[in-house]
Amino acid sequence: MNDTFLKACRGEKTDYVPVWMMRQAGRYLPEYQKVRGNISFLSLCKTPELCVEVTLQPVTRLHMDAAILFSDILIPMEAMGAGLEFHEGRGPVFHDTIRDQAGLDRLIIPDPEATMGFVMETIRLLRRELQVPLIGFAGAPFTCATYLIEGGSSKTFWETKKMMFTQPELFHGLMEKITACTLAYLQAQAKAGAQVLQIFDSWVGILAPCDFEEFALPYVQTIIGGLQDTTLPIIYFANNGATLLDLSIRSGADVLGLDWRINIRDAIRRVGNKALQGNLDPFALMLPRDALRQRIKRMLDAATDAHGYIFNLGHGIHQFTPPDQAKCAVDAVHELSGR
Amino acid sequence: MNDTFLKACRGEKTDYVPVWMMRQAGRYLPEYQKVRGNISFLSLCKTPELCVEVTLQPVTRLHMDAAILFSDILIPMEAMGAGLEFHEGRGPVFHDTIRDQAGLDRLIIPDPEATMGFVMETIRLLRRELQVPLIGFAGAPFTCATYLIEGGSSKTFWETKKMMFTQPELFHGLMEKITACTLAYLQAQAKAGAQVLQIFDSWVGILAPCDFEEFALPYVQTIIGGLQDTTLPIIYFANNGATLLDLSIRSGADVLGLDWRINIRDAIRRVGNKALQGNLDPFALMLPRDALRQRIKRMLDAATDAHGYIFNLGHGIHQFTPPDQAKCAVDAVHELSGR
Repeated sequence: MNDTFLKACRGEKTDYVPVWMMRQAGRYLPEYQKVRGNISFLSLCKTPELCVEVTLQPVTRLHMDAAILFSDILIPMEAMGAGLEFHEGRGPVFHDTIRDQAGLDRLIIPDPEATMGFVMETIRLLRRELQVPLIGFAGAPFTCATYLIEGGSSKTFWETKKMMFTQPELFHGLMEKITACTLAYLQAQAKAGAQVLQIFDSWVGILAPCDFEEFALPYVQTIIGGLQDTTLPIIYFANNGATLLDLSIRSGADVLGLDWRINIRDAIRRVGNKALQGNLDPFALMLPRDALRQRIKRMLDAATDAHGYIFNLGHGIHQFTPPDQAKCAVDAVHELSGR
Repeated sequence: MNDTFLKACRGEKTDYVPVWMMRQAGRYLPEYQKVRGNISFLSLCKTPELCVEVTLQPVTRLHMDAAILFSDILIPMEAMGAGLEFHEGRGPVFHDTIRDQAGLDRLIIPDPEATMGFVMETIRLLRRELQVPLIGFAGAPFTCATYLIEGGSSKTFWETKKMMFTQPELFHGLMEKITACTLAYLQAQAKAGAQVLQIFDSWVGILAPCDFEEFALPYVQTIIGGLQDTTLPIIYFANNGATLLDLSIRSGADVLGLDWRINIRDAIRRVGNKALQGNLDPFALMLPRDALRQRIKRMLDAATDAHGYIFNLGHGIHQFTPPDQAKCAVDAVHELSGR
């Protein structure tokens, strides 16, 4: 069992820098495309045997030091009663947007095993196969709320902020309900065998620091506080959240994920004794190999003072990335950090 | 003549905090909609009399301390030979994307008066009318380049970064050409009577600091360096650029614009003796009036140590903002800062 990733999450010294990539099980891999060829994205998420297969693909091909459960952050929103569809090219769509008390009242706090048993089954199956640690995950409440309020992805998040600013009680009510669902969901993942839990706050970077502190952070704290009994390391990734880093320390997470917008040396100065994960621009995987290795070398050098460091991209790997470029990056991290 | 804004740009003490709002002449104003009712966006941009009318609208209605020329950052890209169209709801479209040397070679460096005389005419007309300073502007080269490379707005900027990382010489060649065009264009605006120049880097926030330093900042420096003779104050606004602030100091700008993602106190600590402009979340204009005034009070308090401070939004005002809410914010800034 390769536990380098777990050690880094706990801030312990490691023999080399462990690496995984957000969205490592995904469309850039031809073997993933092959599985997806016959099945919708949502059906794939609900078929444990196939989830296991695609979760393992990048670990096998690219020698990742961690696996991440193949699923989607919106699965629990569907379990709450929000009708979810995925449209090719457009992404997730919720037809019944939540914009008033009646909409909020319709949402339930689901029993995770009863409604999302396929996720826990995937975790149990994966643990029998894996030689590296398995990451479970969920969306952070703020990010999940934006999807329910906007009805899908958004460019401006006008409806979300309008609710925050003009109906704060309704907004907080929605956040509380999502938080209760998310906590139970992550506890179920832990019980099923997840070894690390990552909370993805993909859209929280649209908030001013004062609004992050009031409308988003408290719910992340509730979730992480509620997971203390599991003793699992928790990673909090606030995408586009460089200016939220000082506040994110208070989330209670063991590891803070960084996007690519911040120099990791600057991040280390600001977060002190938290482990860090990140932060190569995913598109930098397009660099010629020598330049890619050089950039990775600079990042590793800059990260030497981190209290635990996990190499990752600053965002999900892009679907047009040649797998060999990803492999080049993984190999460079391993070689240059002394594996 | 109200020169409070000019003084703040130069870092001088002012009797009260001057205010204007990005995109203050725009769709949220019914009087603007009325002008737009009969004419396309691009035709409006090319009709000096109408540009004058819509430029003056917010100054009159909201008592702004500065006017900004009504135009679009892509006007000079059209003058370079890139065929520009604006589609309702979709934004700007360039059919001939620039992705190779042949495409780059087709672009010309236009004579501003000959090709964009309507802009300079608008400036001359406005100077006869205005009792507040007039801001001229241009897009920063990086932002303009993204439009030419992507063919319009983009979600991921894949093509832009792919060119940066795999064809850096082509990318730099494009940046040089846009830079030459932009410098001449801003010099012409200065000559026509613009009193402050703002450089909008709307998309530069997608860059890692090391890439900003290599691919974007040098061209901003060239432009600002080339404008030294004009002695006009220059504002550089790097949208979503909180992590680029330390590098942006080197741009040579007199004023740095801030989006809403950074606490202004934190920005002051980092930029030292530059004047600052910003940084209310434009959507916070939806707050109930008491809460809006409170938030503005907190911002003004946080900004007292700035070496020159101009109140603004952290991004353009949203089209659904009630004008009375914008008025409430302007009045609050004036009253609370001692006008």
